[in-house]
Amino acid sequence: MTYRFRDLLALEPLTAEELTFLLDQSKLFQEIQRHPLKKLATLRGKTVALAFFENSTRTRISFNTAASRLGADTMNLQAEASSLKKGESLLDTVYTLNAMKPDCLVMRHAASGAADFVANNLDIPVINAGDGTHEHPSQGLLDALTIRDRRGSIENLKVTILGDIQHSRVARSNIHLLGKFGCQFTLCGPAMWVPPELEQIAPGTAIRRVWRIEEGLEGADVILVLRVQTERMYEPTLSAEEYILMYQLNAERLRRANPEAIILHPGPMNRGVEISPEVADGTQSCVLEQVTNGIAVRMALLFLLMSGTAEEGGNPISDAESNGQTATTEKKESTHAAD
Amino acid sequence: MTYRFRDLLALEPLTAEELTFLLDQSKLFQEIQRHPLKKLATLRGKTVALAFFENSTRTRISFNTAASRLGADTMNLQAEASSLKKGESLLDTVYTLNAMKPDCLVMRHAASGAADFVANNLDIPVINAGDGTHEHPSQGLLDALTIRDRRGSIENLKVTILGDIQHSRVARSNIHLLGKFGCQFTLCGPAMWVPPELEQIAPGTAIRRVWRIEEGLEGADVILVLRVQTERMYEPTLSAEEYILMYQLNAERLRRANPEAIILHPGPMNRGVEISPEVADGTQSCVLEQVTNGIAVRMALLFLLMSGTAEEGGNPISDAESNGQTATTEKKESTHAAD
Amino acid sequence: MTYRFRDLLALEPLTAEELTFLLDQSKLFQEIQRHPLKKLATLRGKTVALAFFENSTRTRISFNTAASRLGADTMNLQAEASSLKKGESLLDTVYTLNAMKPDCLVMRHAASGAADFVANNLDIPVINAGDGTHEHPSQGLLDALTIRDRRGSIENLKVTILGDIQHSRVARSNIHLLGKFGCQFTLCGPAMWVPPELEQIAPGTAIRRVWRIEEGLEGADVILVLRVQTERMYEPTLSAEEYILMYQLNAERLRRANPEAIILHPGPMNRGVEISPEVADGTQSCVLEQVTNGIAVRMALLFLLMSGTAEEGGNPISDAESNGQTATTEKKESTHAAD
Repeated sequence: MTYRFRDLLALEPLTAEELTFLLDQSKLFQEIQRHPLKKLATLRGKTVALAFFENSTRTRISFNTAASRLGADTMNLQAEASSLKKGESLLDTVYTLNAMKPDCLVMRHAASGAADFVANNLDIPVINAGDGTHEHPSQGLLDALTIRDRRGSIENLKVTILGDIQHSRVARSNIHLLGKFGCQFTLCGPAMWVPPELEQIAPGTAIRRVWRIEEGLEGADVILVLRVQTERMYEPTLSAEEYILMYQLNAERLRRANPEAIILHPGPMNRGVEISPEVADGTQSCVLEQVTNGIAVRMALLFLLMSGTAEEGGNPISDAESNGQTATTEKKESTHAAD
Repeated sequence: MTYRFRDLLALEPLTAEELTFLLDQSKLFQEIQRHPLKKLATLRGKTVALAFFENSTRTRISFNTAASRLGADTMNLQAEASSLKKGESLLDTVYTLNAMKPDCLVMRHAASGAADFVANNLDIPVINAGDGTHEHPSQGLLDALTIRDRRGSIENLKVTILGDIQHSRVARSNIHLLGKFGCQFTLCGPAMWVPPELEQIAPGTAIRRVWRIEEGLEGADVILVLRVQTERMYEPTLSAEEYILMYQLNAERLRRANPEAIILHPGPMNRGVEISPEVADGTQSCVLEQVTNGIAVRMALLFLLMSGTAEEGGNPISDAESNGQTATTEKKESTHAAD
Repeated sequence: MTYRFRDLLALEPLTAEELTFLLDQSKLFQEIQRHPLKKLATLRGKTVALAFFENSTRTRISFNTAASRLGADTMNLQAEASSLKKGESLLDTVYTLNAMKPDCLVMRHAASGAADFVANNLDIPVINAGDGTHEHPSQGLLDALTIRDRRGSIENLKVTILGDIQHSRVARSNIHLLGKFGCQFTLCGPAMWVPPELEQIAPGTAIRRVWRIEEGLEGADVILVLRVQTERMYEPTLSAEEYILMYQLNAERLRRANPEAIILHPGPMNRGVEISPEVADGTQSCVLEQVTNGIAVRMALLFLLMSGTAEEGGNPISDAESNGQTATTEKKESTHAAD
């Protein structure tokens, strides 16, 4: 098994087998997060360009840390400081970064399709770290990895997604991934955030829409709570108070779900708005495991796309297990990385 | 002698013996700053999270450089870009960082007690890089190291602190540290910035309040000039002109002090406001030594809290002295760091 | 041949021989950009301070990447976060950085002469990364390297500079460098941006001013298109539409130039304003080669100024050519860097 694409732009085009391969690869890097020394030399001498045209803290730090733990250097471009403000086009900005010869580009952009557009015009691997309301594939993978760890499998689960699904790239990446494993989806939120067309976004996947949260949670195995964007909330049609009253996931409502249901949230959480503190901090909540798994997934992705050697049987960890013995490891790893 | 805490949150709870131990450890790292190559591999494979919820340039760069010189990687969270703006709680932000598995958290926050609160909820060492008006322990240590170098000892000195003492965490950390070595304090500034309760902050330490700077400087061995926060100055009660007239440390006033008195300032200086240029640049001024010592103190703290091996007789430098011979050094250091 | 200065503040004082030496050194580092692994250990254990008091994305990332590829660490000070906002003087900010013991300072500042002023007050090498309207020497060098690669030589070329030459440090650095190799300059733009005194800035160099772009491009071998600062454009005297009509470099106008003419732009480009998209993306355009060469030039400069061993015959690449074999290389390089 190998990963057949140069980039990771979306989960929609991947097969269940390919997705499983990516999750299995991530598993190897989960172990590293438990070592006292977490740094490998696998991508030493390589550079990851991180271009965040939209503000981000956790995703940027997560990719940055993933790159560092593989031994790679990073180039950091952030929207605030960028030449885009000076009128430069997206493509010119990205071409400029690319002319400095990074080995991979991780990008986030407010426009759906931006990562695709850039990837079509570049000769290096591109990882989509979120493009508009389209996809956020590394988040979909880390969510699936978290579910698989907690529930043993990602097959045939009842998944309820709560909140502003219309504007959520996280929801779309989850539906595309989990849908391929027979999961059935219940989308639940205010009508304006759960339009009818969402039922068609993943043909072959069972997706239903529900307005009452009590009904939406009935028998759920996995509950994905989306962040409420406060800038979208104070519209005449919906106040924060009404949202809390009607859609907050609290302990009482959670009892409707499967008793073993787990709760995911992509963060940052608005405690007391879309999720009650007792649920956020409860034993069913996986929010911090998601963050830890994010590093593992991103290390796996950078390794697969940058080392150019995602061969069957290749195990990035076995080479580095003795990473206390840096001098030796480096020689091995460098040879490997130079293949 | 070892350091008995997991964190460094404040200097107040430390004994004179423990403070001396920290200063002695810092001494070892001072030498590194004079080497042509200043990088060790001691903390290689470790990660320091730097979370600055309040703007900072010098302290952030100082901790970042200290971490790099020990071979550690860093995760950088800055207030401007942080999720706090999106409504996330402090604890959720810090838990998120922690879930990425850093080995230490260095944090600055505008609220007094924030570092304590965070440390009580985390399982990794926390270094307080300034919390509100409470403490700034690494600054207190670097000030003491500077004084000890220049004066030979930090015992029984007459220390005068000038300016806005009420809002100064630097003043408090200095009083808690130097007070344990028998130093006596004169607090001098406008009455609104030197309230009576300051006399009680370190029981057992002689602290007096004085309004006239000429009287305040009489016989001083150490003068700590605090930065005037311009946003606090243009109140109806005090203009910049009045402050300069009444409280600026200038050459004429300096003559009241011990002729061997030294002058500290935590920076950034407002030249011509709280300190005159001739004094700032004079031979009695230690402002740049303070900055250099800041790196040494922070390297010592990161080493002690992160290596988990602050054993008697352990000497981080001796292992790395030959740090030109990187390949060899790394093997040694890595073994050491993996203990 | 060695480089006889401690700093690189301007190209004006350098001789043709010295400039050729810098270009030849950069040539060695161009090769590195084509390796699968681009990182050397040459400056390992050294620190480059990057102080950008004026916003910059590409130049900052370029110097940062150059430093990383030489194995150096960086300290990053950016205007937004800096103490300058708190009233600290430029010199105090720079002294503070220097007290943390970096081995080189790269600085950008809005005031002409700022880099000179700082260099006169520091004991470490200073590289001017742009000071007001004075010079931007590393940009001049990367432009010359690009021209030499494309045209075989930088001697006796006809160079046309288009746009706001009055405010351009890039134009000045190009004139000072290329003028020493017998190049002749045509300065072409709106009269307010091409004042008479520009004809005298490089005594001995042929510089003429021309108002019509068709005349300005006649027979040009090299065309340097400057970025139009939109904040300078919407004056009563000149609108963007008028500028495009009168001074945009488009395909039709380009036919006036030597058919082998090449086009440079320091970036970021305003596509459709000073340059038409077809010209920007055409085969005569060198904008991306300029960016790639920027890394090579900056690696050469950091190497020359920081290693302290710019001896005749010294070849930083030959030692590192086998940089796949990291452990071995490092030993060699470290010995070298410690000389």
